[in-house]
Amino acid sequence: MTGEIAAVGIDIGGTNMRAGAVTIDGEIVEQRRAPTPADDPTGLIAAVADVASIAEQVPIGIGIAALVEPDGTVRYGPNIGVRDVALAATLGGITGRPVTVVNDAAAAAFGEYRAGAARDVDDMVLLTVGTGIGGGIVVGGRLLLGAQGLATEIGHIAVGAGTRQCTCGLTGCLEAYASATSIVAIVHEAIAAGATTRLVADGSLTASQIARAAEAGDPLARDAVGQAARHIGDVLATLVTTLDPARILLGGGAGPALADVSIPVIAAQMRRRVFGAAFRTLPDVRLAALGDDAGTVGAALLAAQNLDEEMTD
Amino acid sequence: MTGEIAAVGIDIGGTNMRAGAVTIDGEIVEQRRAPTPADDPTGLIAAVADVASIAEQVPIGIGIAALVEPDGTVRYGPNIGVRDVALAATLGGITGRPVTVVNDAAAAAFGEYRAGAARDVDDMVLLTVGTGIGGGIVVGGRLLLGAQGLATEIGHIAVGAGTRQCTCGLTGCLEAYASATSIVAIVHEAIAAGATTRLVADGSLTASQIARAAEAGDPLARDAVGQAARHIGDVLATLVTTLDPARILLGGGAGPALADVSIPVIAAQMRRRVFGAAFRTLPDVRLAALGDDAGTVGAALLAAQNLDEEMTD
Repeated sequence: MTGEIAAVGIDIGGTNMRAGAVTIDGEIVEQRRAPTPADDPTGLIAAVADVASIAEQVPIGIGIAALVEPDGTVRYGPNIGVRDVALAATLGGITGRPVTVVNDAAAAAFGEYRAGAARDVDDMVLLTVGTGIGGGIVVGGRLLLGAQGLATEIGHIAVGAGTRQCTCGLTGCLEAYASATSIVAIVHEAIAAGATTRLVADGSLTASQIARAAEAGDPLARDAVGQAARHIGDVLATLVTTLDPARILLGGGAGPALADVSIPVIAAQMRRRVFGAAFRTLPDVRLAALGDDAGTVGAALLAAQNLDEEMTD
Repeated sequence: MTGEIAAVGIDIGGTNMRAGAVTIDGEIVEQRRAPTPADDPTGLIAAVADVASIAEQVPIGIGIAALVEPDGTVRYGPNIGVRDVALAATLGGITGRPVTVVNDAAAAAFGEYRAGAARDVDDMVLLTVGTGIGGGIVVGGRLLLGAQGLATEIGHIAVGAGTRQCTCGLTGCLEAYASATSIVAIVHEAIAAGATTRLVADGSLTASQIARAAEAGDPLARDAVGQAARHIGDVLATLVTTLDPARILLGGGAGPALADVSIPVIAAQMRRRVFGAAFRTLPDVRLAALGDDAGTVGAALLAAQNLDEEMTD
């Protein structure tokens, strides 16, 4: 039996958007893709309204690679070229349907919490490793958004006395050490400085290749992935000391490739630096389960939950 | 007109416990104090039951200087000498009243959120500076407790590449640099090493004296308080990047003495290290408002809220 469609979820990235008709159990019954119009808010809204027609009447949930205010206004999405677009309000007006808009990593976290690798807990952290580092946090069953929608910028927590320049303008951010992009950059720099490795510093080098080389024992690859994992472990120790989650998930584009070699290092470093390791059960660190579908599923289930709460208020 | 008593709040410290009969607006109508029985769980429960009789029938909220599990079991309270005491369940059985138990700093944060210096926001952080550093966090109107009740151990977040030994066994914790005890210890060490100061390194030196000397321009005092404030600012930058609160409060025994000289330094350092300072409104940092009453008021209002939610479930 196919479940009833609870909501449409739409994951809007810098290149494409993916829409899914999602059941209350988080199953995607039907999917649709479309290119993301860049630097074109009107075109963006029209494209979103179009893919949202994959299922009529049900609420629409959107996860977008951008900073999103609590009312669903997209404040700033450099990869899409949007700034101060009242996405929820405008799309709600056009479609006549309830619209929820959050950051894409937050949507992915909610998807993993409701239907993925954290469905059995109420407090979880998703760390996404890709071009950047993002994340989402669920606290007591509620998605953490913050007063201005600027919470869970995990990639921009400072690591130790780090001095690497981050794309955000700060120095020493986790993202500057442990994103896929940064791991590749650090390997390039080390090769230029004469490090011993079988890796070749050409433009096609990827974090996945580096992860495979690390698993095969390449010393430079092991150093780069190990350093990234230790910084992730330090930041997760801070998050565990602050939030006390029951589960931590590693996701994002590079998460699966990095997981096998990184997770043991992350867990060991976290244990070393967390408060009260002796008397707490440390959260286990696992690979996220929903892959590219997490944002679509999470956005849809968040929209369905918001509608449900409005109706019972 | 005096409001109706909503709950009894009890703040249990290492030396004394303070009970208050509290209205729904957070007003303490009547108070009672008693010594805290040490290393005597049975005596502790009897003493709490006794002070709770300050108002009959209403729910009982307790903030205690201890790690508290989500079900109200006190896991570990070294200053009181308790370990694995089912305080909520036992006291509930004795009194026949609903009992809520949380960590004392969490209770204080909830008090400031509901009736103090953060009553106008829904997302806030309280940082308490005293013998140690503690804190409490409210996210979207909910007190953050964590999966095991071990959340918001803010004093044990690592600062930069810090190496000072903390009482918890870790090195580099915020508490090892910025608690009242640590500020005094750092000044003692600097005087022993020949630092220039008008402060006298005898056993009676306090953080309040050091704060006053800093305000008067004493170089060592300014260094010690400034270093503590910068470390606090760095940790708050991490918390703002993670939680996006609308308000940050400074409380605890040493909070009022340190506030004038510390808050500008804390705010400047936070602005320097927070993600997105250019496009977010930074939370203001203020002195907490309820002083020693915060825990009593917060514990009572939390107990009242829990009863209310149980009745509407």
